[in-house]
This record gives sequence, structure tokens and C-alpha cells, in this order.
Amino acid sequence: MDERRLRRLLSRIAGGETTVEEAVAALKGLPYESVGGFANVDHHRTLRVGMPEVVFAEGKTAAQIAAIARKLAARGPLLVTRLAPGQAGPARRAVRGSRYDPVSRTLSRGRMELPTRGPVGVCCAGTSDIPACEEAAVTLEVMGVEAIRIYDVGVAGLHRLLARRADLERSVALVVAAGMEGALPSVVAGLVGRPVIGLPTSVGYGASLGGLAALLAMLNSCAPNVTVVNVDNGFGAGFAAGLMARR
Amino acid sequence: MDERRLRRLLSRIAGGETTVEEAVAALKGLPYESVGGFANVDHHRTLRVGMPEVVFAEGKTAAQIAAIARKLAARGPLLVTRLAPGQAGPARRAVRGSRYDPVSRTLSRGRMELPTRGPVGVCCAGTSDIPACEEAAVTLEVMGVEAIRIYDVGVAGLHRLLARRADLERSVALVVAAGMEGALPSVVAGLVGRPVIGLPTSVGYGASLGGLAALLAMLNSCAPNVTVVNVDNGFGAGFAAGLMARR
Amino acid sequence: MDERRLRRLLSRIAGGETTVEEAVAALKGLPYESVGGFANVDHHRTLRVGMPEVVFAEGKTAAQIAAIARKLAARGPLLVTRLAPGQAGPARRAVRGSRYDPVSRTLSRGRMELPTRGPVGVCCAGTSDIPACEEAAVTLEVMGVEAIRIYDVGVAGLHRLLARRADLERSVALVVAAGMEGALPSVVAGLVGRPVIGLPTSVGYGASLGGLAALLAMLNSCAPNVTVVNVDNGFGAGFAAGLMARR
Amino acid sequence: MDERRLRRLLSRIAGGETTVEEAVAALKGLPYESVGGFANVDHHRTLRVGMPEVVFAEGKTAAQIAAIARKLAARGPLLVTRLAPGQAGPARRAVRGSRYDPVSRTLSRGRMELPTRGPVGVCCAGTSDIPACEEAAVTLEVMGVEAIRIYDVGVAGLHRLLARRADLERSVALVVAAGMEGALPSVVAGLVGRPVIGLPTSVGYGASLGGLAALLAMLNSCAPNVTVVNVDNGFGAGFAAGLMARR
Amino acid sequence: MDERRLRRLLSRIAGGETTVEEAVAALKGLPYESVGGFANVDHHRTLRVGMPEVVFAEGKTAAQIAAIARKLAARGPLLVTRLAPGQAGPARRAVRGSRYDPVSRTLSRGRMELPTRGPVGVCCAGTSDIPACEEAAVTLEVMGVEAIRIYDVGVAGLHRLLARRADLERSVALVVAAGMEGALPSVVAGLVGRPVIGLPTSVGYGASLGGLAALLAMLNSCAPNVTVVNVDNGFGAGFAAGLMARR
Amino acid sequence: MDERRLRRLLSRIAGGETTVEEAVAALKGLPYESVGGFANVDHHRTLRVGMPEVVFAEGKTAAQIAAIARKLAARGPLLVTRLAPGQAGPARRAVRGSRYDPVSRTLSRGRMELPTRGPVGVCCAGTSDIPACEEAAVTLEVMGVEAIRIYDVGVAGLHRLLARRADLERSVALVVAAGMEGALPSVVAGLVGRPVIGLPTSVGYGASLGGLAALLAMLNSCAPNVTVVNVDNGFGAGFAAGLMARR
Amino acid sequence: MDERRLRRLLSRIAGGETTVEEAVAALKGLPYESVGGFANVDHHRTLRVGMPEVVFAEGKTAAQIAAIARKLAARGPLLVTRLAPGQAGPARRAVRGSRYDPVSRTLSRGRMELPTRGPVGVCCAGTSDIPACEEAAVTLEVMGVEAIRIYDVGVAGLHRLLARRADLERSVALVVAAGMEGALPSVVAGLVGRPVIGLPTSVGYGASLGGLAALLAMLNSCAPNVTVVNVDNGFGAGFAAGLMARR
Amino acid sequence: MDERRLRRLLSRIAGGETTVEEAVAALKGLPYESVGGFANVDHHRTLRVGMPEVVFAEGKTAAQIAAIARKLAARGPLLVTRLAPGQAGPARRAVRGSRYDPVSRTLSRGRMELPTRGPVGVCCAGTSDIPACEEAAVTLEVMGVEAIRIYDVGVAGLHRLLARRADLERSVALVVAAGMEGALPSVVAGLVGRPVIGLPTSVGYGASLGGLAALLAMLNSCAPNVTVVNVDNGFGAGFAAGLMARR
Repeated sequence: MDERRLRRLLSRIAGGETTVEEAVAALKGLPYESVGGFANVDHHRTLRVGMPEVVFAEGKTAAQIAAIARKLAARGPLLVTRLAPGQAGPARRAVRGSRYDPVSRTLSRGRMELPTRGPVGVCCAGTSDIPACEEAAVTLEVMGVEAIRIYDVGVAGLHRLLARRADLERSVALVVAAGMEGALPSVVAGLVGRPVIGLPTSVGYGASLGGLAALLAMLNSCAPNVTVVNVDNGFGAGFAAGLMARR
Repeated sequence: MDERRLRRLLSRIAGGETTVEEAVAALKGLPYESVGGFANVDHHRTLRVGMPEVVFAEGKTAAQIAAIARKLAARGPLLVTRLAPGQAGPARRAVRGSRYDPVSRTLSRGRMELPTRGPVGVCCAGTSDIPACEEAAVTLEVMGVEAIRIYDVGVAGLHRLLARRADLERSVALVVAAGMEGALPSVVAGLVGRPVIGLPTSVGYGASLGGLAALLAMLNSCAPNVTVVNVDNGFGAGFAAGLMARR
Repeated sequence: MDERRLRRLLSRIAGGETTVEEAVAALKGLPYESVGGFANVDHHRTLRVGMPEVVFAEGKTAAQIAAIARKLAARGPLLVTRLAPGQAGPARRAVRGSRYDPVSRTLSRGRMELPTRGPVGVCCAGTSDIPACEEAAVTLEVMGVEAIRIYDVGVAGLHRLLARRADLERSVALVVAAGMEGALPSVVAGLVGRPVIGLPTSVGYGASLGGLAALLAMLNSCAPNVTVVNVDNGFGAGFAAGLMARR
Repeated sequence: MDERRLRRLLSRIAGGETTVEEAVAALKGLPYESVGGFANVDHHRTLRVGMPEVVFAEGKTAAQIAAIARKLAARGPLLVTRLAPGQAGPARRAVRGSRYDPVSRTLSRGRMELPTRGPVGVCCAGTSDIPACEEAAVTLEVMGVEAIRIYDVGVAGLHRLLARRADLERSVALVVAAGMEGALPSVVAGLVGRPVIGLPTSVGYGASLGGLAALLAMLNSCAPNVTVVNVDNGFGAGFAAGLMARR
Repeated sequence: MDERRLRRLLSRIAGGETTVEEAVAALKGLPYESVGGFANVDHHRTLRVGMPEVVFAEGKTAAQIAAIARKLAARGPLLVTRLAPGQAGPARRAVRGSRYDPVSRTLSRGRMELPTRGPVGVCCAGTSDIPACEEAAVTLEVMGVEAIRIYDVGVAGLHRLLARRADLERSVALVVAAGMEGALPSVVAGLVGRPVIGLPTSVGYGASLGGLAALLAMLNSCAPNVTVVNVDNGFGAGFAAGLMARR
Repeated sequence: MDERRLRRLLSRIAGGETTVEEAVAALKGLPYESVGGFANVDHHRTLRVGMPEVVFAEGKTAAQIAAIARKLAARGPLLVTRLAPGQAGPARRAVRGSRYDPVSRTLSRGRMELPTRGPVGVCCAGTSDIPACEEAAVTLEVMGVEAIRIYDVGVAGLHRLLARRADLERSVALVVAAGMEGALPSVVAGLVGRPVIGLPTSVGYGASLGGLAALLAMLNSCAPNVTVVNVDNGFGAGFAAGLMARR
Repeated sequence: MDERRLRRLLSRIAGGETTVEEAVAALKGLPYESVGGFANVDHHRTLRVGMPEVVFAEGKTAAQIAAIARKLAARGPLLVTRLAPGQAGPARRAVRGSRYDPVSRTLSRGRMELPTRGPVGVCCAGTSDIPACEEAAVTLEVMGVEAIRIYDVGVAGLHRLLARRADLERSVALVVAAGMEGALPSVVAGLVGRPVIGLPTSVGYGASLGGLAALLAMLNSCAPNVTVVNVDNGFGAGFAAGLMARR
Repeated sequence: MDERRLRRLLSRIAGGETTVEEAVAALKGLPYESVGGFANVDHHRTLRVGMPEVVFAEGKTAAQIAAIARKLAARGPLLVTRLAPGQAGPARRAVRGSRYDPVSRTLSRGRMELPTRGPVGVCCAGTSDIPACEEAAVTLEVMGVEAIRIYDVGVAGLHRLLARRADLERSVALVVAAGMEGALPSVVAGLVGRPVIGLPTSVGYGASLGGLAALLAMLNSCAPNVTVVNVDNGFGAGFAAGLMARR
């Protein structure tokens, strides 16, 4: 319910085209009336952010996911995350034109059409980190932001990273994933003066503590332009980077 | 903005008493209106709870504490917690009639006059737990709730606890403090059918982990009527128990 | 052996009605007598609390559960928790009139008939927290306490919570479940002057540490009316809240 | 190879009944000659302790267990621990007269015939702790020590524990198992002046941290006669208690 | 050594202008050449970022700090962080026109003159979090970015936060500090579609674990636009937010 | 109040030498009557254990310690632990004949005269572990048990330990202290078939986690005759070992 | 591309046998040209280390592993680690002459031919640690270093370890694996003046914390010649030891 | 007692030159004989390692340190570590020619004269890590190994590290210190094919957990030539590296 629609409704009341009862019902039909204007703000936020609805599939049945996805896709771009291949079928069939990607485990359709300031780089050290990176990249793309994939650039072979310096530099923000010792965000952040989002992954074993070692490393980065998200939270990293790329 | 007020506004538009522009402005103003009403509710809450203001003294200077205390004491009962003896002087002098207690490290004056359902028992195992207990007891007293002190009733000498069964039973809720292994709340909760608030203390060393061992023990209590507060949080335990004792 | 009985015994010795040997025997028997009396007290507690027997099904076979459930149901209301759907059949058939609920994973029959002071609100942020909430709600209902379900009211969309303020306010105590960052209890506790029981859930991944992050957050709540139970302990939260709602 | 056998062997050499080569071979046949007398000491220890060989079955195949068990049973009493029901068959058949117990998950045959000072009490709070207790009890029995089972005596119902005081008092040492908050060892240790071995179990969930909460509680016991073993280590608890019961 | 330069070198060999030995030496020298170019890039980065030098004072003597500060201030804006009041004197006197702020514990002079997209909001729940916020705010100001201070807006009194909505909405990024349960970033991030940097503080005790509880809460935020920095790292939060505000 | 004294009191009542009121007062004057025979058991236990009173000095003032020590010393042997040199004076003067030992930080006087089965060995790896060992040794001596000190026998120089094998073997139980990696108890327990009490110390830094690394190592000992006490808990280790040495 | 090959290429240009275009293409065909000489260094390192490519199989499909293995085996010795038996078939068939070892879970073929200074000892306490040891031993063998297996030499039976002293002493470095309390590296390091690499294993349960207890113990070793790798990281331990054995 | 000596003893029995009693006594004496020989081995080790005695000063008085230092310095090179400036005087005066270094906090005199294979590089990221590095460097120098100091080469400014490549490459082993995120060892280990010893330091705050974050990062290094020592253990890192540099 944006201001334009509110104004139109009120004009119809003023003009007698709509009764007070109908208007009350219409306003009550919105999810938010009971808390007054406050809810409108929330609605505005959703439109502005350009990410109306995201479904976290883990813990839901394939049928539930399909039902939710169909409903959401009617209103705008769709993104379903953490969707296992074995559960994707019903939702993919329910939303015509949707695309399931088994690497990022996302189902998506459409993209926002909002102005951006430039692309976001998505980096990782090894192939095991690619699923988290792809979750971030798909999120960015649904938000209408270009994602530059900069993969296999681990700190134990710096030349591969240095070879991609041009791509690092044209990014307005960077998502940098790493498991194990989690050192890559510090190195990348030392190369470019852009916000870097550290994305720790659960890649590793033993003292990696399921990704906590990488998480701690990133939180202690000696480069001050690193902020961090939860382990394996590719969606969150992509979403935050996408907001930074908005004009 | 409840339904009644919304309906009235819409009727005024329909009747031409209000222009569309005025209505849009009024509805856009709503977030602030609802904030207004909201704050009132908060104000009501404060009155109803009967604990208008509590000062956590740690990290404030003696002069700051005195200034805040004087201001608050003008409006109702006063409670200052975590007030070291060396810092209590100015505040005590600033609030005529206030009382500083070096054991609980509280400064207080006055008490609420609200109806209660009965006293709250405050138990502990050893003398080292008494400061946390006294913080709870003083909090209860400022809330206008009687505190029954049941001290030195540790689990390694059950007879002392059993000797206080009558006091346990006439309590409408219990605060049970323990450091080290934190076993006392389970034992007390097995004796009486009342809500028991486990209050872990930092008493101990080594594997007590600064009170975390006792905290974990209480969270894992085999008695289902135990809920838990933070380590050494005597004020929180007393406050929650005081609410339970309210009519 | 209270003072009155002791005095009577000693008088009988003084009066020659009891020999010294008889008195020694009686007094030596005391530990067992006191155990006897003690057990009675425990029996009274059970009756007063109105929750005679609860079965924790995890780790028991379907046959064992059925046998215990039949025996307990003969004496009063029955509650079985943590009962997986695949194991519920025998117990459900063993107790005529019992009801199995797959969401809360409880089997129950009957309810206590004790006077209460009002309903208990049961809140949660997201759909994944509902099983823990329902365990609390069913526990409350078996205790004879009305449970008001206030679901899907997470802190990232405050308007949904504010819309349920009337329900929050008529509750005499609240169970507030949350996984992930565990912020909901603090927000709810800031809105109502009632005891709030924080119920952390294991919903989350990575740095949620299986619910410990939510648990820690609740223990550190800036609202002093929050006490906490173990992760996913819906039964404990419901039970403690139910006691608070007893008259 | 105890002193008596060594003396006999040397006498046979002196008497010409055994050649030097045969004696060297015999002594080399012992596992330890290569390190000289040192190994003999180890051998002596084994005989004195009366627990010649114990097999930890976890991580071995059923065939491997059967082979080891047959070999060991030829030399004296046998104890196999952590033996899952599905893997017990071959070993049970390989050792005639052996007995598999599915609760303690042990396979055993025979017992040591060494003098003891009295029985060992084995206590636990709930039925879920019984497997760990039974592992301790079976270990004691193979060591030739009587085990008094004192089960279902949790701290939330003290009368059940007090009713077993006579059994506690005739024990020369006690194994006390508990999961969840791990409070039982403290309470038992406060009742009897005997060494108490706290046996934390992994019974619990959430903040029980797989038994670590109980472990920490026991390490912080306010009763000084409590020592502790690893989580679920029924064998170690029984073995240490058995040594304490040796004359 | 880009392709163009390589081609020229090889051509010179082909043309006999360069001997093989000279070419080998040149190519072996390459790592140092590339280091040279690399360092220039780093220099560019510094200029572009607009934060040429920052001194972390902790662990340095007052004299060392003064010497470094004087040297850096000769080249551009200066920022010294974590500077205790007792150590600030020499550095303040060494840099004419510098300003020491005892709350943020910073010494600063000058500011960058780079175009920005708008102000950054800096929020916190309680007065104890203000030092970390001020460190962020001063950092922003030295970067030439306006900082909007939004203090004392804790989640247990939502109306205070809602009253500052206009300020939240005009911020292009937000730094949100919180100790204890660390809930504020989630609530703020639910209100505005902007990147939110969670800044956990060490405010709290017991189970706050020196700020780790707040840190974990923020990492588990249910709002996807939250990224996190280390405990009390106001400089890092301000710096990252300042980069986001750059045009 | 043993049976003999009880019988005498009752006889005096029967003989008219004592009034009922006097007898009630006498019985009430004992600390334990109100819980009947149960308290007597506790009293019996104290006598049998032979460690009537132990004072943990940490957290008490020198004056408090002196007052308690004087009172306890009137009844039997005295032991004060964790007594800093600067606080020992008043207590030492208050109890004539007491001895303060600055290494173990104990004040003691007298010893129990109960039959024992042999000495207890007290071992440690390095000189930094000696204070914890001495606390154990002094505790043993007050209990009337001989302590054999076996110091400086760390695992990185096995020959020193092997040279003390005779002493290890004549011990009926062993206290084995170690900080850092905590390996010594396993090695000792592999040499002798006696109960070994692992006593982790806080000696170390970094990953020793204040003694937790040693504690964990001992809990995971591959030797089954190791049980463990809290970090630096020399008193508990000595006390438990002393009980094992009792006849 | 070592110096010899570079020189030959340049000579061919000088001699007109190769055109500049061909040379540029050849140099571009190397993976590293884009970063100039820097990449060559990396290439040099690989040749010198003698471990050109190692595949970590976990998380890859059998087909992916086979494809990578075939490609790598064309260039030199091959090592695939963490390869489950069920996934080894395709890779084993793809690389003729390769050998799959189910204990170490490695697939290997060939070995480096570089001069070494002597063998590396690989020790462990129990049979459960053998898989980690074999991973280290196979790694050493592919590096062309002799591995001396010294198994079943746990600290609770020192004679077995002492019997292998000659083997310990002829090793130029040692890999010492241990789970549970992790004491073996300290004991071995006390016997020989060689670098010892502690290899903690995840063998154990409860307080072994998945190998972290052993890891902590090794980090706290009282022997200063112990360095440590991650839990179960047999490859890393073998690789580092192999480098130490290189001439 | 090797086989040759055993055979001779048995032959003497067979030949009547030794009685059975004498042989039993000889064989019973063996453990002590083997201890004798064992200790010699240890003695050999000390000589061979070339680091006869090192004093860890922490926890010792200045007078104790001086006494030990004087005694040790009489036998060979001396090294005292963790020696605070305020405590160094007496020891420095006690050992003529000794040198106290306040940065590394070591007192040393002399150096071993054993053949080495080359220098050891000692690297660190920032100035705060220099004390740990210097402790390693001084240890190397006392061992007679050249230490190449490579300081201030942190990962956020790679060019500084790359500029020191020649020094990295001529090292036979490397000690690489880092606090905060601990990334430097991985980067260095990717540049040179030499054993790298990661030396985590306690530099950092908050989520650095006193150096544990850096420690975890290093244990999870993606470069397999990294092994790790305890936090701030410069001596251990230097010592192990020194052994690697021995011929």
C-alpha cells in the first residue's frame, strides 16, 4: 500500500465511489492495518530493497516449498535457498520459468530492476567453497546486481589471486568465502579499498570446528574493511553486498 | 490508530469534513502517533510492574551515580545495584533516607505498595553465594515482596535444607543460588511445587569456568520447575521472582 | 518427627508409659520414619502441582512407552513428550482416548482441574520454532492452563508482534521461543510486566551452535524479567509457566 | 610370569631338565623380554590387578572381536565392552560359557578370585543412566567385587535415595552416574564417608553438551570425596572402584 | 611484466639486441619488478580509500605514539585509536591542532575530502556501548562521512528506537552496537533496507563471555542485511561503513 | 549425639532427673534434631571420615579465618586451605601450635588417629606443580595418612620416574599432578595397579586454557585406573586418596 | 618451467629456431604468465618440493576424482587422500599401476627421486590410530622418504615403546599420532633429539571432544621439540616430516 | 638386559656357576638396571641436541633464577626465557658475560658449536609479534643457528612479504608468527617448499580469544607444510626449527 494507492482509495471515498465500510475492509485486508502506519513502512522497505520474498527451504517438505514458491512468484522475483536436489522438483514445476541450480541449491526466477553502482566480486579459495559462493552470486543476480566470479584464488598460491586484480578493482563490494584457516578475506581486503564481506564456510575438519576457525579468523582480520556473516551464509553475504551495490 | 479511529477518519472524508490531503497527512503521521501510544503503554508497564527505575552502577562514576539516583528517587522507590563500597558515599548522601548495604552492594530507599500473593524464598549453599542472594532479596523488598532467607543449605549436608522445609513451602516462588556444581536448585525444586529460579554464581575455580559450570547444571536440571538467569544476576532473579509473587 | 511428637514421646518416658528401650528404638527408627514422611510430602507435591507423571519417550522402545503410559493413565492425566510419530502407535492404542500430536510430538489425555490465574502466552519468531512451542502449549493444557498461541512474530518484522499486544497483556506469564539470535524474549519482556520464560531452540546453523547462541542471548537479556530453560525444552518452559499461572 | 614360575624355570635349568636354549625361547615368548626386567613388572601388575585383558569393541569388526576374545579367554577372565548387540554373536559363540548383556553391552566370562574389602555401590538417577552403570557393575563382577545396584535415586526425589542409605553405608566405594545436571555424586558423597567416583553420562540434550555439563558439575562438586571419569566411561569407573575395593 | 613487455623482450632476443643471458637475468628479476608495481597499487589504494594511516595505540608507549603521530600527521589526516587518557598528552602536543576525545579514546586531526553518498547512522542500546560507537563515529568523521548518533535505543524499549526512524532511513549504512544479548542489529535491520554492521561490545558479565554472546547473536541474525565485526571493534565498523558511504 | 548419649538422656528422663522440657531443649540444641535421625548420620560420618572441619580461606578476611579456625581447633584437628601468606598471621596466632606452610598455603594442627592401609604417593612433573601437591600431602597428613612425595618425574624424562618405582609400588593410592599436557597420570597408572587420582594444575599458558587441557587429557587417559579432580584441587585429591587409604 | 628450460627456449629464439609468437604462446601456455615471474617461483617450488599434486577426495564424486587423477598422473607421482573404498574404483582403473590402500584410504602411484637424509618414524599408541599413521606413511613414501612404522607403543605400557628405541633414534624426524589424552608425542620427544610432529586423532569419546583434547595436550607438550598438525591430518604430518627429511 | 646377557646368565645357572636364588635376585634387579641404561640415553640426547638446559623463569623468584642460572652456565651455553626486566638483574650479575634482552625477555650466554644446514627465517606480521619472534631467534642463536629476521610482512600488504623472497628461500626452515587472524604462515608456506612452524601470538582482542583464533587458523592451514606450536611459544618454535636446521 504505497502513498499513491492510499491517495486513490481516499479519493474514491471522498467521491462516494467507495463506502466507508468498503474502505475499512480494504485497509483491514492489508496485513498491516492493526498496527497503523508502521506496517506501511515495512511494505515500503520491501519494495525499496527489491527482494520481496526469500524461502529458506531447509526443514520444509517439497510440497510446502512448492506451495509457498507459487504464491510468492505471483508477486515478483523468486528465490528459494537451501533446496536439496531431491526436493526441488515440485517447486520447479509449480513456478513456470524457474531455474534450479544444484550447485548453489537455489531455485530462482526473475530479477529486480533497480539501479546499481557496479558489480560485486565473489571470491573463493577452493572448489569446496563454490556452493556458498554460488548462493551469494545467485542472490546478487536476483537482486539485479552483476556477480563477478573469482574462484580458486587461495592464499597458498597468491599468483592466481593477483592475476584477477582487475576484477577485484572494478567491484564495488566483495564477498570472499574461505573455509579452513579463513585467510583469504584479509588478503583481498589488503588489495582493494572496498567493503569486503567475509563468508566463512564449513569446509575443513578437526580443529576447523565446522567453520568456526575460519569465522574467528575473519573476525580478527588485520584489514579493517572486512565484516563477516555466519558460516555458509551465502545468501546473507550476497544480500548485504547487493544492498551495498544499490545506488 | 485503532479501527474506531480509522472509521471516524474515513467517515469524515466521505462527509467532506476532511480533505484527501488532510487524510493522507494524518495517515502518514501514523507511525509517530503509534509510537506515541506505544510509549504510553511502556509507561503503564513501568507503573504496573512497580520497579520504576534501577541503576546498574558498574562502569559509572560516583558522581554520575549520585546524580541519577537523586533524580530517580524524586519519582519513587530507588534501587542501585553493583555499587562498590568505595563509590557509595555520594549517592547515599544525595538521597536522604537511602540505605547502602555492603553485602549486596545495593543502595535503596522505599518500597512499592502493590498486593502480593506471598513471600519468596531465597536459598543458597554457602556463604560465598550470599552477596548474590542479598541482591535478589533487596530487589524483592523494594518490590514490596517479603524475602525469606534460607542460607547455608548445600547439597552435601541435606539435613540443613530439610530443616527449612516449612519455609520452602510457604514461598510462592524461590530464588536458589549456587556456585560450583550448581546442584541446589534441582534438589529444592524436587521438594516444592513452585517456580524455582536458578541463580548460578561465579563461586569456584578451574573447571567452574567462572560460573558457567553451575549455569549449565541448572539449565540441565532434572526438575522441570527450574528456570535460570545469568551468572551472579541476583537482581534479575529477584525481579522475576517478584513478578511471580505479584497478585 | 516434629517437636510436638518428640515432646509426646519424651512425656511418655517421663510418665513411665514408654520404656527407654522402646524410645531408643523409636528414635533410631526415625531416619526411616522421616523418609516415610518425606515421601508423603513428595506425594502431596505431586497432587498439588497437578502434573502427576510425565514420560520422556526418547531412548525408550514403543512397547516400554505403551506399558508406562497405560499404568500412569490409570491414575490421572497423562503426558508423553518427545514421542516420534513412528513410535506413537502402541501407546496411543494402549490409552483409550489419548491424542497424539505430531507437531509437538506429544501423547496426552485429560487435564488437571485446578484453579488458575489466567492464560499463558506462547510466542515464537518463525515456523521452525513451532514444535518447541507446541510442546509447551500442550503441557500447559494438560496442567489445565489456557495457552494463547502467538506465532510468527519475529523481531525483524516488529509490526506482527505489536499487533498481538492485547494477547501479550492478558497473559499472566509468557513462554517465548526463538532460535538463531534469540532476541524475541528481550523484546517481548520489554512490552509486558510479566515473567517471561526464554525458550531457545536449536533452529539455525553454523555459529548458532545448536541453539547455544540463542541460549546465551537470552541469559544476557537486557530485560530483567526473562528467565531461561534449556535448548528445545518446551516441556520445562510450559511446566514452569503453568506453575506461575496457578492460583 | 610371576616369581614362582620364574623360580621353577630357573630350577629346571639348574637341574638340567631344560636347556638354556629352551629357557631363552620361553622367556622370549613372553611379550616383554626385549626390554628386560621392565616388562616383567608390567606382567606382574596385570596379575595383581586381576583384570588381564579387556577388549574395547567399538571400531572393530565382529570377526576381529571374536578372534581376540577367543585368544584372551584362554588365559583368564574375559571382558569385552561397547559391544553392540548386532556384533556380539561371533564372539559369544567363540567363547564357550560367555554371556552377552545387551544393557551394558558387555560380553564376559569368569571372574578374578582375589580378596576384597567389601562391595561397591553403583548408583544412578534415572533409567537412561543404567547402561553406563551396568558397564561399571559387570566390570566390578569380573574383578570379583560385589556390585550393589542403587538405581532410580535422583536428586529431585531425595526420599528414594535416603531409603537406600544402608546400602550406601556398607559400600567401600561408590560409582555414581548422572547425566543432565550431574548433581547426584555431590549428594551421595555428602551422605557417606567413602570415595565416590562421579560417572557423567551423555543423557540430556542442548546445554548438556553431550555430557560435558554433568562432567563439569561433578568436577566442581562441593563434596571433596568425589573424583570423576570421562563421559559414559562405565568401565573406567568400575575398574577404579574395583581397585579401591581390593584388599 | 605484461604481454606487451614480454613480447618486446623476446623480439630483442630474436633481433640479437639482447643476449640470452641478459634475458634470463631479466626474467629472473621479474618477481622484484612485479613487487615494485604491486606496491604502487597499494599506494594508490591508500589514497583512494582516504584513510592513509591509523595508529592502534594499545601496547605502545606514549613517546612512540607521539613520534608516529607527528610523522603521519605531516602527510594527511590523522587517527589514533585505543589511546588511554593517561597516554594522550605527548601525542596531542606533538600534533598541533589535534583533538583528544576521552570517550572514544581517539586522537584525530583533519578529515578526507572525498565525495560521499550520505550519512551513516551509529546506534546503540545503552550508555555503556557509547565508547565503541564514538570510535566508529570519529572514524567516519575523519573519513569525511557524516555520523548520525542514535543512542539509547535498546530493544527493551522499542518506542525510543521507532522515534528515530527518520534518522535510520536517511542513513546509507548503519553501525549498530550492542552488548549483552546483542539483539539491536536484527531489529534495526528489520526496519531499514540498508547494510547494517553489527558491532558487539564487551558490555555484560557471566554468560556474556566478554562479548561473545552478542557476537554470536549478531552472526545468527534473522535479518539478512547484518554483517558483523569483532567485539569492541568500533574502528573497523566505522571504517567499513565509511567505505560503503563513499561514492 | 550417639546412641549411648541418647540412651543416657532418655534414662534421666525416665528417672526424673531431667524434665521433658530440658530434654526437648537439649535435643533441639543439637544442630540436627529437627530432621530426626538423619542428622545423626551426618554427625557419625564426620567422625568416621576423620576430617571434621576444613576451612577454604579464599574470599574470607584474615579476621574471619582466625575466628573460625579458633572455634574449629577446639574440637579436633584443623586444616585451613588456600590461605595467602599475607592473611595467615591472625589465624596462626589464634590457634596455638598451628603451622603455616607457604608452599601449600595451608594452616594446620593435629592429625586424626585412625588406622590406615598404607601410604599415598603424591607425584608431579615439575616444580610449578608442587604447591598443588603439597596441599594434597598436608591434607593426607592431617588425615593421619603418610604422604610419599615423588616430585620432578615428568614424562619427558622417564628415567626419573622409573627410578621411583619402589615408592610407586608401596603406595595404596596415588595423587598425580600435572599441568600443560597432563600426561603423567597415564604413565604412572600404567606402572602400578592402584587407584590414581589425576590432579590437573593451572601451570601453562595459551592453549593450556588455565588447566583445562591437562584436565581433558586426564579424563581421556588410556589407563582405566585414573579418576580426576578439578584444576588445582589438591585438597580434594588428597582427601579422596586419604579415604582410599583408610582401613 | 625451470631455468634450464627457460634458457633453452630463449636460445631457440636467439637462433631463429622459434619465432617470437611461438615463444609468447609457449610462455602464455604456462598457467602463470599473467603474473609474470611470480608464477615461475611457484612452479619452481613445486619441482623442488617433489609433491606436484595431491587430491583431497572428500566431497568429490568418484568420476571427478578419476578425471583429476588421470590428468595428474600424466605429469608425475600421484597421491589421492581421504578416498573411501566405495569411491576408489574409477580412479584406480583410470590410473594404470596405481594402488589403493583401504587402511590409509589413499590411492598412489610412483614416488619422487630426490635425495633424503634418512627415514621418518611414524608412531602410534593404539590400533585405532593406524589409519592416520598410514596416511602419513604413504605420503612419505610418495615423497621418496622411508617410513618406519612404530605402532602400538602407548604410554600406559612404556616397555613396548622403549623396545623400539633404535628405530626412534635412526629417524631424522618423527610423526607421532595419538587420540584420547595425546601423551605419546611428549614421551617420544623426551627420548630423541629430533623434530616430533604431533598428530592428534579423533579416537576417543566424551571429553575427547573429537580429538581436541589430544590436540590441546600436544600443543602444551612439556617437550619443546613437538609441533602439531590438525586432528587426523596424516597427510600434513607426513608432508611436513618429508620436507624435514629432504637433504 | 639384552638377549646376550640373558643367555650368559642362564648358562651360568646350567653350569652351576650361579644358584637359582642368585639368578632370581639378578632378574628381579633388572628394572633398576634398565633404568640405569635408560638414563644414559637421556644424557646422550641432551649432548646431541645441544641445548643442555633452559630455564623458564615465570613463577620463579629472581634469587632462584640467579642460582639456577649460575649452576647451569658452568656446564655450557645458557638460556633463560620469560624473564621480566624487573627480575633479570640478579641472574645477569650471577653469570658473567650473560646478556639480557628486554624484547625477547631472555638472558643468554654462549652458543652451541654444532654443524647446521643453513639459516632459519623468523617472520611476523606486525610489531606486536616481535617479542615472540625474538624469543625464537635468540633460541636459534644459542643453538648455533643463524636467524634471519623478516618482520612487518603482514598479509594485508603482500608487497612487503614478496620483497623478502630471497630471504625466505635461503632458509632451511621458517618460524612464522602471527596474532589476530593468523594468516601469515599459510601465505609464507605457499611461497617456499620448506617446513614452516606457525607461532600464534596472543596479539588481538575479543574474538581473538587470547590467541586461540590464530592458533586454530594455523592448524587449518591450506598449506600442508605448516605445523604449529602453542600461543606465544617462541622458545618451542625456535627450538624445533633449530633441530630441523641441524645437519
